[in-house]
Amino acid sequence: MTTVTEAEALILAEKRDYGTERIAYEQALGRVLAEDLRADRDLPPYDRATVDGVALDSRGLTGQTAVFRMIGTQAAGDNPIPIKTNTECVEIMTGAALHESVNTVVRYEDLDIVDDTVQVKLNTFRYGHNIHKKGTDKRAGDIVVHAHQTISPEIVGIAATLGSTQILVKKVPRVCVLTTGDELVPPEEKPTPFQIRRSNGVTVAAVLKSYGIRPILIHMPDLYEEMEQILAHALENYDVILLTGGVSMGKFDFVPRALRILGVQKKFHKVRQRPGKPFCFGTFKNNALIFAFPGNPVSVFMCLHRYFIPWLRTSMGLPILQYHAVLQQHIHFSPSLQYFAQVQLATNTDGQLTANFIETNGSGDFSHLAETQAFIELPLERSDFHPGEVFRIWPYSLYL
Amino acid sequence: MTTVTEAEALILAEKRDYGTERIAYEQALGRVLAEDLRADRDLPPYDRATVDGVALDSRGLTGQTAVFRMIGTQAAGDNPIPIKTNTECVEIMTGAALHESVNTVVRYEDLDIVDDTVQVKLNTFRYGHNIHKKGTDKRAGDIVVHAHQTISPEIVGIAATLGSTQILVKKVPRVCVLTTGDELVPPEEKPTPFQIRRSNGVTVAAVLKSYGIRPILIHMPDLYEEMEQILAHALENYDVILLTGGVSMGKFDFVPRALRILGVQKKFHKVRQRPGKPFCFGTFKNNALIFAFPGNPVSVFMCLHRYFIPWLRTSMGLPILQYHAVLQQHIHFSPSLQYFAQVQLATNTDGQLTANFIETNGSGDFSHLAETQAFIELPLERSDFHPGEVFRIWPYSLYL
Repeated sequence: MTTVTEAEALILAEKRDYGTERIAYEQALGRVLAEDLRADRDLPPYDRATVDGVALDSRGLTGQTAVFRMIGTQAAGDNPIPIKTNTECVEIMTGAALHESVNTVVRYEDLDIVDDTVQVKLNTFRYGHNIHKKGTDKRAGDIVVHAHQTISPEIVGIAATLGSTQILVKKVPRVCVLTTGDELVPPEEKPTPFQIRRSNGVTVAAVLKSYGIRPILIHMPDLYEEMEQILAHALENYDVILLTGGVSMGKFDFVPRALRILGVQKKFHKVRQRPGKPFCFGTFKNNALIFAFPGNPVSVFMCLHRYFIPWLRTSMGLPILQYHAVLQQHIHFSPSLQYFAQVQLATNTDGQLTANFIETNGSGDFSHLAETQAFIELPLERSDFHPGEVFRIWPYSLYL
Repeated sequence: MTTVTEAEALILAEKRDYGTERIAYEQALGRVLAEDLRADRDLPPYDRATVDGVALDSRGLTGQTAVFRMIGTQAAGDNPIPIKTNTECVEIMTGAALHESVNTVVRYEDLDIVDDTVQVKLNTFRYGHNIHKKGTDKRAGDIVVHAHQTISPEIVGIAATLGSTQILVKKVPRVCVLTTGDELVPPEEKPTPFQIRRSNGVTVAAVLKSYGIRPILIHMPDLYEEMEQILAHALENYDVILLTGGVSMGKFDFVPRALRILGVQKKFHKVRQRPGKPFCFGTFKNNALIFAFPGNPVSVFMCLHRYFIPWLRTSMGLPILQYHAVLQQHIHFSPSLQYFAQVQLATNTDGQLTANFIETNGSGDFSHLAETQAFIELPLERSDFHPGEVFRIWPYSLYL
């Protein structure tokens, strides 16, 4: 049976590039930046006063006196006011551009002002102070934000400052989520005593939303012909198919047969893991990919975070997230499967990320997903895992 | 001057409750759950087969033989098929509801089936196996998801399963973001050599988006009457005003005067911190709150995450996030101010969250926000901070 490591490698070998598109910066939050954002001019673009006070030429200071005549007031955004002699000064506001005839700004707190006569308290004076010099953050043409990262609120703000109002982002794949299972009814309907409500489609859609992907959701009946028809249409029209259920050994698990007949090249079927063992992955001739997860909600959730999201990040040019946490309890797990346990995350005052194991009833029991934040990936080779040991985690809710 | 701790306490003392509203579960991602979500019936709602195989009564096993006659096939969602004698069995699919006449499920791998004759491999047989018993996850009426947490993708899925299609969430405040500064032009316009483009409004809006808040953005001219008029309107019509700029000592820093004249009760003005010292906070008679941040983008960003978000979380009934990280470098900071330094976060293979300090040019230099993920809060009393020491952090981008 395929191991987790082998399955991951086979999936990442199928990374795709869906190209780029230019969109408005205000719509770009959560998308992946596909170009470097560069300074269109020096940052700051001028010598900038960092306090409110007066701008002067320090050569106007003589040993005894430090008296200047204020010749005008300059707000931020105004053209710079020059001084004609070094006994003049200009009242200046934070953010205003300094004229080349001045070289120091003294803040109000260090001044005595009577009408247009300004006395500088000499003991506080520092040459060149309170100026944020032109080009000291970035030079025109410098990269301010590097490509290949998720566009965060601060990057939206930086794009605004740079005038990058249309920015190049990676296109996301067109995703079709196909769910199966005749026992599943829409959440709005009342189930019979032997039916349950479906949830996998909306859960997957909610996870993908933060990556800017809006999948189409289709629930397929457990009828072979209909299923083959829907799958054929999806394979032709979408980049990625995320399928839940129908991949086990049951009589109505038509998915493997339909995929075979439609010409999907199976890369693996079944992974040595719990949950999610029946997971199947394949490629189609037009480059479409199919991730066929088992139908249990915990299996879907684990496989989505452990396989699909790393594939998506790799395809988008993002690094795969690497988090490790310190296990807090002893876990015994004897099956020869790689175990993904649900844990609660916290940081302690030693700066460690801690993983608190929560016991569950297996992959049909999704009720603990709301109170946990990550899967902890326990090595295949062992069956006992001890408090204090550090293992890799796959977070699904980092903000606690 | 007010300390960070005092400022925080004064702000949190003004927590508000904006009530609740019922919304569709598919729209609830990122909102705060205001009711417990309870199981509307047992979970699972029936004894559920966890594998594909046959369901039987274990009393049909005698010492020597283990042969059963298959009397039907039951898919998930079908009404349960009863057996009439304990030599009968039912072919059953994962997820199907078991009839009370059977007590064990044997998977295909442990069977030999010829037509309707089923032979169980006795050495693999376990009484009661492969059944997820009714009500073992939750009993009808049990709480599945507790109130007062952010609605994550998995909670959306659980709500679907429970049939909670309209869920009670906390209402968010109506927020007005007012920006100031005549040197600031819209990002779409070409600035003169002494102007810069504005960014604070879109940055704040992008941060608030993840909390389901869509603020209105208004840029105010540096003209006293207009500013007073806009502020008066905002105080009457919004729950929270986030203001950037205009709070320093400059001639055109009209904000403190306008707030005083309009009857805003100032709780503090100026905090012993860097960046963001001129921060001013007040309350209005109708319960509106005003957070007046200094105009520098880094100050706005820090104050937003250090003061407004904790206030928002408290008002929504969420805990304030508590993260600590291990400083990686020596930092010397002598001013008698509490320093919020920009750091890059990572986890190391010891499970520690590490904070890598990035040197910047002060609060006007926002160019490093894109490559850092948190502010680290360094104690006010000291001026030297050492590698290996653990301090509180305020993350703004936890997914790296």
